[in-house]
Amino acid sequence: MAITLYDLAGAEADRRFSPFCWRTKMALAHKGLEFETVPWRLTEKDKLPQPNAGRVPVIVDGGHVVHDSSTIAEYLESHYSDRPALFGGEAGRALTRFVQNWTETVVHAAVLRFVLLDIHRHIGPVDQTYFRQSREERFGMTIEEFVKDRDQRLPAFRDDLTPLRRTLERQKFLGGGGPVYADYVVFGAFRWARAISNFELLAADDPVAAWRGRMLDLFGGLARKSPAYGS
Amino acid sequence: MAITLYDLAGAEADRRFSPFCWRTKMALAHKGLEFETVPWRLTEKDKLPQPNAGRVPVIVDGGHVVHDSSTIAEYLESHYSDRPALFGGEAGRALTRFVQNWTETVVHAAVLRFVLLDIHRHIGPVDQTYFRQSREERFGMTIEEFVKDRDQRLPAFRDDLTPLRRTLERQKFLGGGGPVYADYVVFGAFRWARAISNFELLAADDPVAAWRGRMLDLFGGLARKSPAYGS
Repeated sequence: MAITLYDLAGAEADRRFSPFCWRTKMALAHKGLEFETVPWRLTEKDKLPQPNAGRVPVIVDGGHVVHDSSTIAEYLESHYSDRPALFGGEAGRALTRFVQNWTETVVHAAVLRFVLLDIHRHIGPVDQTYFRQSREERFGMTIEEFVKDRDQRLPAFRDDLTPLRRTLERQKFLGGGGPVYADYVVFGAFRWARAISNFELLAADDPVAAWRGRMLDLFGGLARKSPAYGS
Repeated sequence: MAITLYDLAGAEADRRFSPFCWRTKMALAHKGLEFETVPWRLTEKDKLPQPNAGRVPVIVDGGHVVHDSSTIAEYLESHYSDRPALFGGEAGRALTRFVQNWTETVVHAAVLRFVLLDIHRHIGPVDQTYFRQSREERFGMTIEEFVKDRDQRLPAFRDDLTPLRRTLERQKFLGGGGPVYADYVVFGAFRWARAISNFELLAADDPVAAWRGRMLDLFGGLARKSPAYGS
């Protein structure tokens, strides 16, 4: 029986923009597991299977409900250990956490200041009300103010990608010759932005953009199948 | 026969301050290999065994001369594959490169602007002349100007350590329960600074400082045996 994934959707059911859900979709495909997605909206807390933390991704695999992208990755690695490895052993698993912490504190934090208003534009009216209120409270300013000056912030963001760029200049994936979960973690951030924003994060000749293209090509172009901006 | 390591030294022969040599010393100890170090100064290009690139670390292991810290790590991992792993497989090796690129572009770049003048103070007169001239040419300013305002730059540096801090809050080492080469790469930067500077990079309650203490304790306190500032 296919795994079910509750996947964050915009006003259009097939516009999937959660960076955390993209991690999970890529991880499921990496393991060669069949899955179907259920579009889920920010305000549909009561439509998730139990247990959950009010957020996606949540997967249902037979009798197991697993939530939180990191927990899901661990679950998939241990329950499907005969399939391609997401981490590649203890060192790989531990170092993946560093990549994840870098992604969340450097990349996500910056991307949010590029695309917050674009997220708002792509969700339905009920979600918009919730989203505006919760984000404006969290950030202490309007969504419009939060993303103002994004053009000026772009060069610093591209500079902050230097460790990623330097790595991908010398190897095809963060995992080396092939992708690992760390690739999906970083890719999630870029796929998130493309889902809802035409603001281009990368210069066309950036090695990171070439890697993003390789990521989009994986698993029969899985990540190209949901609406996105950009090439 | 013990491995010989050419190791960067200050005016005092036992003051060893190269971050790259510290990587190698920790890697040799990780593999449980005996080694002796030869103090080497910046201007002693002709005293290195061939082949070399005019820099340390260089090791001599029986008939093999290997130079460049990354090449040495690869050499140790493949020639001593029956001993504790530095990388832990292909994914671990590939992700270590990301940690290394982060270390060199984020940590080293910042530390240099804290300690460049302190390096100058700890090397002999011949090295000082070479060092001042080459660094002032490279950076387009005097050494004194280069490190001026270092107090003001400290908070941003500590912020930049967030991915490292967040990882080490949740696991003892970058490698998880035990250290791997990625730990030695990051540690090299901190051990470098301590060798020649009393400028404290970390707050006392920083989880990164606790990890640095664990690193100093490894291998019978190997990294405590060379002169250093700080606790």
